[in-house]
Amino acid sequence: MDKVQFEAQMKRYAQMTEAALVRFVPEQPELPEHILYEAMRYSLLAGGKRLRPVLVFAFCSLCGGNTETALPAACAIEMVHTYSLIHDDLPCMDNDDLRRGRPSSHKQFGEANALLAGDALLTKAFETVLACREAGAQESRTLQAAAILARAAGDHGMVAGQVLDLLNENRAITAEELIDLDAKKTGAMIRASAAMGCVLAGAAAEQKCAADAYAKALGLAFQIQDDLLDVAGDAALLGKPTGSDAQNDKRTYVALLGLEASRRAVADLTDQAKKALAPFGGKAAFLCMLADRMAARES
Amino acid sequence: MDKVQFEAQMKRYAQMTEAALVRFVPEQPELPEHILYEAMRYSLLAGGKRLRPVLVFAFCSLCGGNTETALPAACAIEMVHTYSLIHDDLPCMDNDDLRRGRPSSHKQFGEANALLAGDALLTKAFETVLACREAGAQESRTLQAAAILARAAGDHGMVAGQVLDLLNENRAITAEELIDLDAKKTGAMIRASAAMGCVLAGAAAEQKCAADAYAKALGLAFQIQDDLLDVAGDAALLGKPTGSDAQNDKRTYVALLGLEASRRAVADLTDQAKKALAPFGGKAAFLCMLADRMAARES
Repeated sequence: MDKVQFEAQMKRYAQMTEAALVRFVPEQPELPEHILYEAMRYSLLAGGKRLRPVLVFAFCSLCGGNTETALPAACAIEMVHTYSLIHDDLPCMDNDDLRRGRPSSHKQFGEANALLAGDALLTKAFETVLACREAGAQESRTLQAAAILARAAGDHGMVAGQVLDLLNENRAITAEELIDLDAKKTGAMIRASAAMGCVLAGAAAEQKCAADAYAKALGLAFQIQDDLLDVAGDAALLGKPTGSDAQNDKRTYVALLGLEASRRAVADLTDQAKKALAPFGGKAAFLCMLADRMAARES
Repeated sequence: MDKVQFEAQMKRYAQMTEAALVRFVPEQPELPEHILYEAMRYSLLAGGKRLRPVLVFAFCSLCGGNTETALPAACAIEMVHTYSLIHDDLPCMDNDDLRRGRPSSHKQFGEANALLAGDALLTKAFETVLACREAGAQESRTLQAAAILARAAGDHGMVAGQVLDLLNENRAITAEELIDLDAKKTGAMIRASAAMGCVLAGAAAEQKCAADAYAKALGLAFQIQDDLLDVAGDAALLGKPTGSDAQNDKRTYVALLGLEASRRAVADLTDQAKKALAPFGGKAAFLCMLADRMAARES
């Protein structure tokens, strides 16, 4: 697979996601509560890499599944991701005025509407993942996919990570604690994406295991790369000011490990991720290239 | 069924709920994020009528189902209800310092932790309803119950009602608009409770229809009675100051219809609810008495 083929595949997956998201969350101009849908769509359709849906599709496909049956799951995980960004930006959390170069949800719609748009997106995610059944997935696989999403998004995963993030805001932490925090805050959802793709394809246990090892390494590499971009990235490409982590006195890999060791960790983890997919052979070329591209990204 | 038998049944259902909630959301003192579990339990185990779980159990039982298989669904809907109260009390929403006579979640744990405890409870609700499968419910019925919960809690139901509530805060609305608002804000979840109980019991279409008519009437009666209690209730029994709706310039049934017509509406709706259950005959005695008790409640 060359770079052109890779980019074309990324684009196909992203377009499948966009088209379905627009369908799952339609405009509702005739309803008195139409502002809710505007707020949901404002954040949901703001672009972004769609990394999590891409992982759902790619693992579903790699394990021999039909990506159409995984489409609701891909959209569901993007809804959960989007809700988490909206709530994260709220004044009582990170108090960020900008997201992807535009006013954050509470700046655009007010705090209460932003809170409720996040709540609605989280709820919609579960309505949506359950629609895998109607998209052709077996009942048992649909139940498993929904359960994976719930566990990764909640108190065992993402929300726990956000609580840890708050607790650690003004105290020194170790690299191990930061790895645990990120495993929950961002890693759990990335692993859930891979796991849902596998489950919906009816993957074997060894396939699920390999996918999880890939996703675990990719998730951590992604987070370290995020920190590196905050230090050395281009604010225009990122759509947000750089240096914000240091300003907020946040613990980062760069602060804890140094610039060089952080870069090396990204390279090592990317390698690990690719090696985990060895059992799949050449069929895993897309996911291997994805790991490389994530490590080389500039935004 | 006499009053003593009714109270004993209410107590049994409430105790089943309490015991299971404690299991579904255990204390986690050994985890660094233990405050998340404390905040979830603080609001979830604060008492309350457990009306929604009672409806799940009672309809499951009325339609010939095993209440054990509906226990996760009963807990799930109580989790959704609790999350909605936590988010509703936040400063950017109703800004309430008290809930059931105690400091509201954000007063006790801070705004960010309250927000996240709500998010975690909503997510946990879906993890929990999916556990109906392990509790013995069929896969297809579990999927249906989860889908009912998602639709009732989200943009078609409760969250839409909260958006409408905000939009109407400082404007005059008609009784019809208020009925639409409440049908979404509180009615949807009450109907979902009845519907989940039916679905998990494998109820026939006519049974579901009768249950929905009951729940719809009960939900509206409940809301009008709430308004009546805010005007004429006892602050000590309610655990919150009365007159707060009038102070916040909220539109209420009492303001729109007057005291007498509101009382009559509660009586008429209670009658409607009971009549809807006529096809079930004497087996519906518990739910008929529940409607009467709700109309006569003082808190």
